[in-house]
Amino acid sequence: MERVDGRKLRFQHRRGEVLAAATEHALEKGLDDLSLRKVAQSAGVSHATLVHHFSSKDRLVAEVVDQVLSVTLSLPDLPRDHPDPIRAIWRRVTDRRARRYVRLFVAITGHAMYGDPALAKAVADSMRQRNELIAAGLIRYGCPESEAQAVATSLVSTIRGLLSDLFATGDEQRVTAAFDDFAAEVERRVLRGFA
Amino acid sequence: MERVDGRKLRFQHRRGEVLAAATEHALEKGLDDLSLRKVAQSAGVSHATLVHHFSSKDRLVAEVVDQVLSVTLSLPDLPRDHPDPIRAIWRRVTDRRARRYVRLFVAITGHAMYGDPALAKAVADSMRQRNELIAAGLIRYGCPESEAQAVATSLVSTIRGLLSDLFATGDEQRVTAAFDDFAAEVERRVLRGFA
Repeated sequence: MERVDGRKLRFQHRRGEVLAAATEHALEKGLDDLSLRKVAQSAGVSHATLVHHFSSKDRLVAEVVDQVLSVTLSLPDLPRDHPDPIRAIWRRVTDRRARRYVRLFVAITGHAMYGDPALAKAVADSMRQRNELIAAGLIRYGCPESEAQAVATSLVSTIRGLLSDLFATGDEQRVTAAFDDFAAEVERRVLRGFA
Repeated sequence: MERVDGRKLRFQHRRGEVLAAATEHALEKGLDDLSLRKVAQSAGVSHATLVHHFSSKDRLVAEVVDQVLSVTLSLPDLPRDHPDPIRAIWRRVTDRRARRYVRLFVAITGHAMYGDPALAKAVADSMRQRNELIAAGLIRYGCPESEAQAVATSLVSTIRGLLSDLFATGDEQRVTAAFDDFAAEVERRVLRGFA
């Protein structure tokens, strides 16, 4: 039986709290505004505690990015046996909670364009994993395996591009109309059996 | 006849050179790396000259962003009477010169998510103008006016999303296959007269 170190457990717990506070800060203000000082303030811990857990700002940012990527990755999966899977994805990625994560994802992708290699790799891995996930879903809906990756990449790109338009312009009506147009095309395609 | 002030002309000329150097720096390194000191160095001018022309880093960044947005805005227009307009756009936005601008555009869009309101407005205006441009082009290709804005927004979003995937992952083959799949769908749609 493993012995439990109470002090270590408390520290672990505290680490999770601090990371949650840092993620919350980034969701509100973006990564540029993330400083050890500000996170220490909002988490109610000392600068020393923060350094104890994360050693540097870069490390903290990397962990916040991991958190955000794993949440956004889980968002746009194709639900099984759904009458309208594309619209189900759209509802998921545009709901109140998801929007905050997707907005930060758009910002992180921007950072990755000239960012440090670790950040760029995290974003690239996340995009590839998401495409694989959707490709697997498309196969369940009858898409031939040979086409699934191309269709998935194009589908995910359209949704990503629409969300980036929505968050940059705030034009809810225009972007929603564009999504409806797109979803109708995808439905046509599913109905004709991806032929 | 207007009198020409030689000194003013030289200054104007120098201003253009400095802005070009700053834009070049941003295209290589992103906006985060843009400092008055570095731009002064690469343009071969004094810090005082830079401040004379642009007054502050924020002003300089704003002008670089304007430059980049106007170049990227002119990229994805639908060529007139082209047998394959969608593929023509893709070739334009993925050529060697355009890629540098589009990469910086993705980074600027990321900044706009939590950036100052002026930057956010510039990005929003640029996206809206681009959609209008493509909508006008689609109408020339027989798209009903009532649908043109939705189709344009969806089309531009797909291309934007694919480029963001391409620059983040570098997966040239996967993204190109996705674009081909998408272009074939658009052709189908044009052939059936947008019905």
